[in-house]
Order: sequence, then C-alpha cells, then structure tokens
Amino acid sequence: MIVNCVAYEAGRKLADIPVEAISEHVRRPEQLVWVALKDPTPAELEAMQAEFDLHPLAVEDARHGHQRPKIEEYGDSLFVVLQTVELREDRLEIGEVDVFVGRNYVLSVRSRSERGFASVRARCEREPELLRQGAGFVLYALMDAVVDRYFPIIEALEDRLEAIEERIFAGAPARGIVESLYGLKRELTTLQHAVRPLLEATGKLYGGRVPGVCAGLPDYFRDVYDHLSRINQSIDSLREMLTTAMGVNLSLISLQENETTKRLASYGALIAIPTLIAGLYGMNFQEMPELHWAYGYPFALTIMVGLDLWMFSRFRKAGWL
Amino acid sequence: MIVNCVAYEAGRKLADIPVEAISEHVRRPEQLVWVALKDPTPAELEAMQAEFDLHPLAVEDARHGHQRPKIEEYGDSLFVVLQTVELREDRLEIGEVDVFVGRNYVLSVRSRSERGFASVRARCEREPELLRQGAGFVLYALMDAVVDRYFPIIEALEDRLEAIEERIFAGAPARGIVESLYGLKRELTTLQHAVRPLLEATGKLYGGRVPGVCAGLPDYFRDVYDHLSRINQSIDSLREMLTTAMGVNLSLISLQENETTKRLASYGALIAIPTLIAGLYGMNFQEMPELHWAYGYPFALTIMVGLDLWMFSRFRKAGWL
Amino acid sequence: MIVNCVAYEAGRKLADIPVEAISEHVRRPEQLVWVALKDPTPAELEAMQAEFDLHPLAVEDARHGHQRPKIEEYGDSLFVVLQTVELREDRLEIGEVDVFVGRNYVLSVRSRSERGFASVRARCEREPELLRQGAGFVLYALMDAVVDRYFPIIEALEDRLEAIEERIFAGAPARGIVESLYGLKRELTTLQHAVRPLLEATGKLYGGRVPGVCAGLPDYFRDVYDHLSRINQSIDSLREMLTTAMGVNLSLISLQENETTKRLASYGALIAIPTLIAGLYGMNFQEMPELHWAYGYPFALTIMVGLDLWMFSRFRKAGWL
Amino acid sequence: MIVNCVAYEAGRKLADIPVEAISEHVRRPEQLVWVALKDPTPAELEAMQAEFDLHPLAVEDARHGHQRPKIEEYGDSLFVVLQTVELREDRLEIGEVDVFVGRNYVLSVRSRSERGFASVRARCEREPELLRQGAGFVLYALMDAVVDRYFPIIEALEDRLEAIEERIFAGAPARGIVESLYGLKRELTTLQHAVRPLLEATGKLYGGRVPGVCAGLPDYFRDVYDHLSRINQSIDSLREMLTTAMGVNLSLISLQENETTKRLASYGALIAIPTLIAGLYGMNFQEMPELHWAYGYPFALTIMVGLDLWMFSRFRKAGWL
Amino acid sequence: MIVNCVAYEAGRKLADIPVEAISEHVRRPEQLVWVALKDPTPAELEAMQAEFDLHPLAVEDARHGHQRPKIEEYGDSLFVVLQTVELREDRLEIGEVDVFVGRNYVLSVRSRSERGFASVRARCEREPELLRQGAGFVLYALMDAVVDRYFPIIEALEDRLEAIEERIFAGAPARGIVESLYGLKRELTTLQHAVRPLLEATGKLYGGRVPGVCAGLPDYFRDVYDHLSRINQSIDSLREMLTTAMGVNLSLISLQENETTKRLASYGALIAIPTLIAGLYGMNFQEMPELHWAYGYPFALTIMVGLDLWMFSRFRKAGWL
Repeated sequence: MIVNCVAYEAGRKLADIPVEAISEHVRRPEQLVWVALKDPTPAELEAMQAEFDLHPLAVEDARHGHQRPKIEEYGDSLFVVLQTVELREDRLEIGEVDVFVGRNYVLSVRSRSERGFASVRARCEREPELLRQGAGFVLYALMDAVVDRYFPIIEALEDRLEAIEERIFAGAPARGIVESLYGLKRELTTLQHAVRPLLEATGKLYGGRVPGVCAGLPDYFRDVYDHLSRINQSIDSLREMLTTAMGVNLSLISLQENETTKRLASYGALIAIPTLIAGLYGMNFQEMPELHWAYGYPFALTIMVGLDLWMFSRFRKAGWL
Repeated sequence: MIVNCVAYEAGRKLADIPVEAISEHVRRPEQLVWVALKDPTPAELEAMQAEFDLHPLAVEDARHGHQRPKIEEYGDSLFVVLQTVELREDRLEIGEVDVFVGRNYVLSVRSRSERGFASVRARCEREPELLRQGAGFVLYALMDAVVDRYFPIIEALEDRLEAIEERIFAGAPARGIVESLYGLKRELTTLQHAVRPLLEATGKLYGGRVPGVCAGLPDYFRDVYDHLSRINQSIDSLREMLTTAMGVNLSLISLQENETTKRLASYGALIAIPTLIAGLYGMNFQEMPELHWAYGYPFALTIMVGLDLWMFSRFRKAGWL
Repeated sequence: MIVNCVAYEAGRKLADIPVEAISEHVRRPEQLVWVALKDPTPAELEAMQAEFDLHPLAVEDARHGHQRPKIEEYGDSLFVVLQTVELREDRLEIGEVDVFVGRNYVLSVRSRSERGFASVRARCEREPELLRQGAGFVLYALMDAVVDRYFPIIEALEDRLEAIEERIFAGAPARGIVESLYGLKRELTTLQHAVRPLLEATGKLYGGRVPGVCAGLPDYFRDVYDHLSRINQSIDSLREMLTTAMGVNLSLISLQENETTKRLASYGALIAIPTLIAGLYGMNFQEMPELHWAYGYPFALTIMVGLDLWMFSRFRKAGWL
Repeated sequence: MIVNCVAYEAGRKLADIPVEAISEHVRRPEQLVWVALKDPTPAELEAMQAEFDLHPLAVEDARHGHQRPKIEEYGDSLFVVLQTVELREDRLEIGEVDVFVGRNYVLSVRSRSERGFASVRARCEREPELLRQGAGFVLYALMDAVVDRYFPIIEALEDRLEAIEERIFAGAPARGIVESLYGLKRELTTLQHAVRPLLEATGKLYGGRVPGVCAGLPDYFRDVYDHLSRINQSIDSLREMLTTAMGVNLSLISLQENETTKRLASYGALIAIPTLIAGLYGMNFQEMPELHWAYGYPFALTIMVGLDLWMFSRFRKAGWL
Repeated sequence: MIVNCVAYEAGRKLADIPVEAISEHVRRPEQLVWVALKDPTPAELEAMQAEFDLHPLAVEDARHGHQRPKIEEYGDSLFVVLQTVELREDRLEIGEVDVFVGRNYVLSVRSRSERGFASVRARCEREPELLRQGAGFVLYALMDAVVDRYFPIIEALEDRLEAIEERIFAGAPARGIVESLYGLKRELTTLQHAVRPLLEATGKLYGGRVPGVCAGLPDYFRDVYDHLSRINQSIDSLREMLTTAMGVNLSLISLQENETTKRLASYGALIAIPTLIAGLYGMNFQEMPELHWAYGYPFALTIMVGLDLWMFSRFRKAGWL
C-alpha cells in the first residue's frame, strides 16, 4: 500500500505525485522525492525498483523481509533495514522498516508494524530548513523516530524485572517467577537483535569515511548512535541483572526447601514424642505403677501435651516454625 | 565421480568436455570451465590437479576432507572449503564442498552430502548474463546455495528449543528434557563450526583488497556475508536461550523436589495422627473412661477420620497436596 | 539556578558578570568565562545557548538529562557528560554534570547532585598559573573532581562486600545474604554505568589526535584516565568476587540442608528406637518372661534410655548433632 | 645428547659433521647445517651457542625449559618454542622442542618428549627439492610434525568426553563422573596452553611482514596455522560441551535425589499404613466387634496386605517405584 | 629512607654521592645516577623531585602510593609503577615499586615490601658491560627482578589449588573447602591486578615506537613481556580450574545429600519393620494363634531380626549403607 508519494523542492512540498512520475522527478537534482509504502505487494515493489532504479539484491531483501538491521551501500545509494519494536498485549512484536536512500530520494517500506511515521513527515514539512538538507536528513529523522521508540520498551522491560524482583524477595511461588524470568529473557534477546546490529552499522555513518548521502550530518547520526548506545547499555544491564536474579531465585528455592524440611521435621517431632509415650503405657508389664494410678491417664496426657508445648516454643524460637 | 564437466563461453554452454581436454580449454581465456565432482577417488583428484594445475597443499586438504570452512588464496586462484549441513533422521550430518576457483575455471568437490548443486548450474545456464560474469559469480552462486540451506536447519533447531521449552513448563520428566537440551547443544555446536569460520572468511571477499576472481562482485559477496551474519546471530541467541533453559530446568527440578517433600510430609501427617490416637487408646491405664463407653470405638475412629479430613483440607488450601 | 558566572584573564578573576554580558566577554580571546548552573530551568539553558552559541543537539541532551557519560565534539567545542555518584542513606544516587567547553569558556550544568564544585573553582582561583592554561584545564579540574569522588564509593562497596562475606562464613541467615548480594550487584551496575563509558571517552583526550581545547594537557587527562582505570579494575574485581560469593552462598545453603537433614534424622532415631522397644513390650504374647519380672518396667526404660545415650554420643562424634 | 649433526648442500646430505666444524660450515651460505639435540647438557648448549652465535636470552630460555610456545625474532634468526603433547598411561605429558633457525642453519632441542623427529629428517632427505628451500622449510616441517601430533590427542579427549556422556545418561555413579569431568578439564587446559600461544605466533609467519627465514613459504605456514585453528576450535567445543556436561550432571544429581525421596517415601507408606491398622486393633476399647470375630485376625492381615498391594500398584504406575 | 645514592660512569661505580649533588651529576650526560629509596618521607620525595626535576603528577602518584601498575611517559622520562607480591603467613602482601627513569638516571621508590633489590644492583655492578647500556637496562633489571618473584607465588597458589582438589575428592568437609576456594580466588584476583596492567604496559616497550630510554633493548623487554605472559596464562588457568572446582564441589555436596538421604532411609526401614511387627502382635484379637504358642515371643523376635538382617544385606549391596 502506498502511504505517501510526494515531491519536495527547497524543503517545501511541491505536490503528491503518481508512482509513474517518480523517475521523472528523481531526474531533477533540485527536487527530493519521498515515498512511503506499507506492507507492499510484490507488484508495488517492482514498480518502485523500476522508478528509482534500485539494486535487485536490496529489493529482494525488502521483499523477503525478516532481515537483521543493517546499512548497506549500493553505489551512491543506501539500503537501511531497521526493526521496529512494539509492545502489544505484553509481548514484543517486531516489525521492519526498509529505507532506500539516494541522492535526492527516500523510499521507506514499513512491514508488520502498527505505528507509522506520519509524525516524522509532519515535522519535516513544518521545518523546511531541516528538510532542505536532503535525503540524508530524512534518513536521520526516520532512524531517530525508530530508535526513540525503543526507550519506552526498555522501560517496560525494566519495570517487569523490578516487579519480578519484588516477587522473588516477597517469596512468591518460584515456578511463576522462573517462567517470568525466562519470558523476560526472550523479550530482551528480541530487543537486542533489533539494537545491536544497528548500533554497529550506525557507527559508520559519522566520523571516518561516510556514505555520500550522510555527509554533512555527522552530529545527527552521532546523536542516533549515542541513543542506541544508551539502549544497548540498558539491555546489557538488564541481561546481567536477569542472570543474577535467576541465580538468586535458585538460591531461594534451595533455601525454601531447607526451611520446609525443618518445618516438617518439627511437626513430625510434635507427633512422634506423644506416640512414643503412648507406646510406653501400652506396654504389658505387670508392674507398671502409673497404670494403676487413679489419674494415670490424665497424667500421661498432660505429659504429652506439656512436652509438645515445650518443644513447640523451642522450635518457634529457633525459627523452625 | 565426475558429475559435470562443461565448457562455457560468453555465459552459454559450449559442450560437455572430457577430462583430458580441460587444460586445453582453460588455456583459452574467453572460456569458462566448470567441473563438479562427488566423493572423488584419489585418481580423479590427481587428474584434476594436473589439468587445472592446482596447488598441492589445497589438493591434499581436499583429499583428506574434514576441513574447517576457509577461503585461501594460492596465487591467482582461490581454494574454498564449505560445510554442508543436512538434517537426516533428526540429526545434523556434515558434508563438505571444496571449491577451486581460477580466473576462468571452477572445480567443486562435494563429499558426504546428499543434496547436489544441479539447481545452481541450471540457474546459471538459464541466465547467461549472470554466468558471463565468470568464475567469481559461480563461486558466489555455490556459496549462496550452501548458506541458504542453513536457514531451514536453524528453524528446525529453533522449533526443537521451543518444543523443549513447552515440555519444561508443562512439567514433563526432567531427565528427558536434560537429554534433549544436551543434544540440542551438540547440534548447535556443529552448526556453529560450519558457520563461524565461513563468516570471518567471507568478510574478506568484499570491501578492502579482494582476491582477483571476486573483484567486481562486492554486492553479491556482501549478501552472502549478511546471510551468514543472520544465521550466526540466530545461533548465538539459541545458545543463550539454551543455557538459560538449562538453568530454568535446574531451578524447576529443585522446586519439584521441594513440592515432593511437602506432599510426602502431608501424607505422612495423615497417617501419623491416627497412629498417635490409636496409640493413646492402646495404653493400659486402668482408668480410661473412653474405653468403657459403648461407642468408644466409633468415637475414636470418628476423631481420626475427622482430624484427617480437616488436615487434608488445610493441606489442599496451602497447595501442599 | 546560576551558581557562578565569572570572567577571568591571565588566570585571575576579573569580575562576576551578568548573563547578558557573556557573549561579549567570550568574544575577547584573552578572557575565560566560566559559568556554573545547577538544576537550570529551560529558560536559563536557552539563554546560555544564545550567549555561548551552543549546538542545539547538545543543549537538548542537557535539557533531557539522564545521558550516559560521553565526550562529544561539536566543531571546536566539546560537550562532556559526567555522572556524579553520591551515597545517601546507603543507596547510590546518580547525578549529572554536563560541561560545555569552548576555546575560552566553560559552562557546567549540575543536576540531581548535592555536592558542588566550589572547591574546584577555589583551587583554580588560588593557583592562577594553572587557570592560565585555559578552558581545557578547567575541564580537567572538573573531571578530576568527579572521578576522585568515585574512590570513596568504591571503598564503601568493598566494605559492604567484606561485611557480607563475613556473614556468609559466620553462617548468617542465607535469605538476608542473598538480598544483600543482589542489592550490591545493583549498586555496582549503577557505578559501572558511570565509569565505563567515561573511561573509553577519556582515552581519546590524550595520545593521538585530541580535541583542540585539550591540546597541551596530555599528562593531566592521562591522569584522569589512569584513575578511571583503577576504579574500573576495582569494579571488575568486585563483580567477580560478588559472583563467586553468590556461588559460595548457594553451596553453603545446600550444605546446610545436608546438615539439617542429618540432625533431624538423628533426633528421629532417638525417638524411633524407644518407640520400637515400647512396641515390643506392648505385644500380647502369653509367654513373655520380661513382662512378669518385678523390675521389667524399669528394665525396659533403662534399655531405652541407655540405647538413646549411646546413639546420642555416636551422633555427636560423627558431627551429626 | 646430540642426535644428528649434518651439513646439506642443494638439498642433499653432504656429511655428518663434528660439532667443532659447525661454525665453519655455517659460514658457507650455500650450505645448510641441521643439528638435533635431545635433553642436552648445559655444556652442549654452550658449545652450540658458540658455534651458531646464538642470542644469550634465547639460550637461557632453552636451558630453563618450561617455556610457553612462542616465536621470537633475534635479528635475522628465529627462536621457536613448541610444546609436544604425548599420551602416556592416559595422561597428557608435555615436552618441549626449541628451534633456533638462522639463514642457513636449524638447531632443534627436544626435551621431555619420547617421540623424535627422525621421520621429518628422513622425508626432507628423500625430497631434495623441498629441502633446497632452506632453513625455513625445515622449520615448517618440524612445526607441521608437532602440530599433526595434536590431532590424535584431541580425538582421544573427544572419545573420553563421549564415554563420560554415555555414563552420565546411563545413570552411572555421579561421583566418578564428576572426577572424570574434572580430569578432562585439566587435560584440556594443558593442551590449550600448547596450542593457543602457538596459533597466535604462527599467524605472524605469513601474510604481512614475515621474518626473513620464512619468506617465500606463506602457503606452508598458513597450512600450519589452519591446522592449529582446527585444533583450537575443537578445544573450544570440548570446553563448552564439558561445561554443559557438568551442568547436566548437576541437574541429574538433583533429579536423582528427587527420585530417591519419592521411592523412600513410597516404601515408608507401605510400612506406615499397616502400622496404623495394627495400632487400631491394639486399642483397648471394650466394644470392638472385630476383635471378637473368629477370623478377625486374618481379616486385619488381609486388609493390611490388600491396602499395601493397592498402594504398591499405584506407586508403580506413578513411576515412584 | 635513602637506601643507595650512587653515580656510575662507563658501567663502573664512581662514588656514593650526597642527595644535594644529584642534579650536578645528572647534568653530566656521561654519568648514570641510580638512587633507591624505601618508604620515603614526603620531604625526601620533594628533594628528589627538585634534584631530578620530576613531573609533579608522577611524584604525587608516588606519594599517594596504591597505584595500579603502569608505565607512563613524561616527556623524555618514564614513570613506572610495579607491584611486588610477597607471601607472608600464607597471605599475599602487595608492595609497590615506583621507578623514575630519565636519560641518565634511575630513581626507585620501594614501599610496603620486605625484600629489596640489592641483588639487582650487585649484579649490575658485577657486569659493567651491561650497566654501560644505561638507565634503560637498570629499568629492565628491576622489572625482571619484580616479575621473576611472581613465579614462586604462582606455584604456591597452584599447590594450594591442588591441595584443595585432593580434599574435594577425598570427601573432606565441604564448608572448609568452600572457604579455601573463596580465599584462593581472592589471592588470585590480587595477583592478577599486579600482573595484567603491567603486561599491557610492557608490550609497549618493544616492537613499534618505544620510549627513548628503552630504545636498543627490545630483546630484554620482550623477555620481561614473555615472562609476564606465562604468569598471566597460569593465572587464567588457575581461575578457570578454580571455577570448575567450585562447580565440582557443589555437585559433590548435592551428591552427598543424596547419599545421606539414602542412608538415613535405610536405617529408618530397619527400625520401622520391627515396629510394624510389634504392632501386629500388640493387636487385641481374641483369636491370634501365635500369641498362644509357647515360643511365640522368640518366634516374633526371630522374624524381626531376620528381616532386618536380610534388609541390611540388601542395602549394603545397593550401596546405600
């Protein structure tokens, strides 16, 4: 589906143009053509390939989808794969934005993602002096938008870890905690796959030799890089704390077992001691004076209860019960 | 066994040629000779060495087999070792494809692998404009075919991990899970040995100084590199999730032990309490009023059963039974 | 809040100047303007941006706060983010110092931090020959102050680990130890986030190509780097010892369980043996000579007590009790 | 002990020469002197130092022995330390081969190793065209021989791991398995110390700037490097599988404990239930109809046995027995 | 305290000189001044700073002490920090040697270390041809002495690990083993802090661009580097084996628990079975033929003892007792 297909000049929108006119506009170096597709059909992609003269390998990647994030140069143009991460019903959903950037065009192809980039276009159209910087700036704006949307995801995962930590130390059922930790680990791995390769690739858009379309914008791409670094660092911390939390949970499970054993043994003793005494007075010796006492029976019961009370208080004190 | 032995010119098949004619065709720079062997005898390899003038160390490697993936330059020619990975009866089987590439020849030697590369040759013959790019393109096509066959393997392993995860959280017998995880780890190590060295080696076929036969095809080899990166990343994730799954399984085993202990202790209590009461009424005191009651016996039984029912409901509530 | 706004010349204080005069003073290359803000309002930041002509991306970072430590070049000027770490009520609190450094100005912006840098300014004003070295030296002095304040933090964490170690080997309750270790891990991660990125960034302020404002001061910045290295090494050691301590704690928990089991079983035996003997003399055989002995009952009790004493001494010797 | 002391010319053996004549022959650039020592006395080493004019630091290393593998340049000559690994009575024994290589001489010093390099010399003498390539080729031949002898060691260790794995999953006694795994880990560490530093060092004998004596033989030294890479990779896999096997073993120990607990508890129940029933009929109530039945006793026994059989079959089904 | 203060010329000792004369001698390029301090007072350090014209940052480091090992260039001079490691009463004690090296002077400052470097000076004075190489050689000799003293430390730690391993597999009390392993880990971390930074720094004293005072001595500094590499490798192995030993110990603790459980359960059964039988004959059925047998009581005892003997032999066979 074609979301937008617009030609700009000097940072200002000229007109929505039909697909067939793209190649014509691209031929004018003073113009900028910015097209946005969403979940395109193969036919639409083919049309774009023809109009923009895109490299077949890049188009093939876009058609297959499910690429890892990367930034590839094809001659003067760039092919950028970004992964969008969205939180739906407590699960991370991975989408993909493929961006083809040439000297004076940008083609973005969005797949499996709910949230679009209308706000990016709106901002660019609001501030012509930015858009005048050309295709490189649009690429920056798209990357910046994708990367900024990682921050709330990271925070959601951090909140989840904190909630799990609380449950761990509050003694919540360990099985549920283990499942939560494992699920969090999975989500973290997913997010890491979106971030890490992009971090590496973005590092090549400023500093040393940079692709032509990114020249003149080093501060901007370094800014994206810096954001990605922060996210990456947060992921690393989360991973480490998660591993530690797993170890802690295992320790606490062992500990709980220890406590269960003590508690059971205490109750066992509370039953076994009276059973022993009952056994004693069940013996059939002819000469057992207590048996003939008028209050022998209550006497025995009192001893039983008394011993149990005494033991109970001792176990309490020792923290076994 | 010689599978194919063909001379091409300008991207089109000239003829199947006999082995003895190879050196003659190779001498004509406008031709391309493409030979495919399968599990060759030492004699066949020797003949090839003579016809193509191959380096003895490379031929020795091909004869021994069981090489790690690598790409080596011998003067103007390349010696490439690829590992094929095939899933047979749920086990990964490693095969080997050794490719000798010169300015205008390609010799591929396939061993211990069921699936051949007829489709690669067919595609190349169908599209002369591709084949016209020469020996480097044939190398690309072979590498691309080998690497693309890793994807279904990765998916099969991912499916296996998912199946194991489900069993873990469904409480399947832990012993079987441990064995499955260990087996998966083994398979993963095998796959990693096929992928990682190749990833490193492929990275040298584009970008900076590249071997002569690969010149002019950087986009193609980068594409192979990118596929290998994706596979490598998936392997890393699998390894990490697998390690986590092992830890989770250990936690759950400990947990289960804890639960077993509780359950056993509950049943123990259900037996011990009536035993104690029976012991009480087995005492031989002369004065035990209950013993003389007409309904003393049913009374005692009622107390036993009553206490057990009460305890049973409490254990239930506490989740011990 | 503006803490200080001073112009210097030849290392000596000229005068406190109003904000509006900053740009005028900055225009005189022989002067040095050094401004310190604390938790500034957006308006104050905007004024500074205008007076010093700061880069919008850097100012945006300063406004958002919560940046990772970094050193970025914007043309001839530097933007430095430092994290301050303070120990309040046993918890690490992270603050931020953003420093904008130009050829002849320094603007420091302190947020969420209790302790200021008055002492740094005092030292610089006391020693004009140092301050004469310009903005680079002020940057060094600020970084040195921030980094030196990490040392007591590291020592506090090391003390905490030592206290935990003692509790571990003294057999303190394992649950509390686990919580302490986890908390320490968290703090360590926090400190590491302040130190590691800064270490990397500082390494680029001496040696090879260095930003203009840092030129001529390699020994000073290497000194900061060296301090950061020491702190970083201490963090690494702490992390490793902490991981080891967690493993040790888990081992000791398992061990304790083992000892609990033995102890309980010993007590169990001390009850079960007399119970068995009582059972024996509760049998109803017509011919049981002991039952008819005058001292049969004391005899049985003596055997019970005797066996228990003997077993007790054996368990003691074996270290089970 | 001097094993061999021979002068060659144009790849062919001239004569066995006395030690005193070495310096004279080395002075003739068209000759090649190749000397082999075994566990030499200090006096022999001194003589060699004088004849070959060896660097004192290198000779000191050779005298001390127990060096890590390394390749050091001393002016135009090379000093190479290799570790031999031999399997004696199931234990890895480390020996050492120190090789001094100059423009036209090779001195090899073998220590604590049973197997010599007579086969290397024999091969070199059989193929004069190889030996004609000079001292560098002899170095290659020695390194190749040492490295090729690592392969059977790796295979032996892999076999041992496999044997342990089988024992793990066959439920062999865990204590023995733990000891075997630990022993294997030790051996692996030993082998790794022989391989890893050599791998690094060998990487500098081809490719970029190489020592003079190795010039012209890049394919050969790359071949050694490739073999070392394969061994190194196998070591890494073994280490990883070993770590995994340790984790698996720990899991299975925990699991076994769980099973033991269940089994014991089942047997406990089979005893406790009849004990309860016996206790019931040991009560002294005046009115207990069963006690007066003619077949009361067999009736009680029947109930006991019946309950036990029923429980036994249930435990069986649940896999507890 | 000033240990030595000597001027040399052409490798030979001229005279012990007073502190005040140092600067005068240093001014003569043909002389070499070598001063050794031990735990100096601030005043002594100040005097040295004045005489040798040392850099204030370096002197500050020396005054503070507790630096990490490093090698820093200050103009033409070097500032080297070495850590000495000494074994006192089974604990590693860290000392420090700070060395200031100029074109023709060496100042060594030793702190918190018992053993001095008199032997280094003696050796240098004995061999004038070595000392003639100047300040760089003295630096080498000091570093060599410090590094060589690490070897016995490493061996002591290896012995300790071996002793612990023996205790582990001999079944010594696990608690003591855990403490020993943890202590060893601490010591290892300490040693590693002395070695690793020095290894890195030493690597820069030969090969590429080297500080002026080290020029002409690459073989010597490479020798120090090689020794440090060996020590570093040993540390790595120790760390890895230690981690493995911890895992092994944990496994054995779990295992021991398993064995304890089995043993206890066996003894439990030996008591429970006779208790059941006694319970049977304690039943009050009117018709229980055995009760009326003349030898009923011995018969019952025989059955009890017989069953116990039979069970005992079975438990023995199964390895439970």
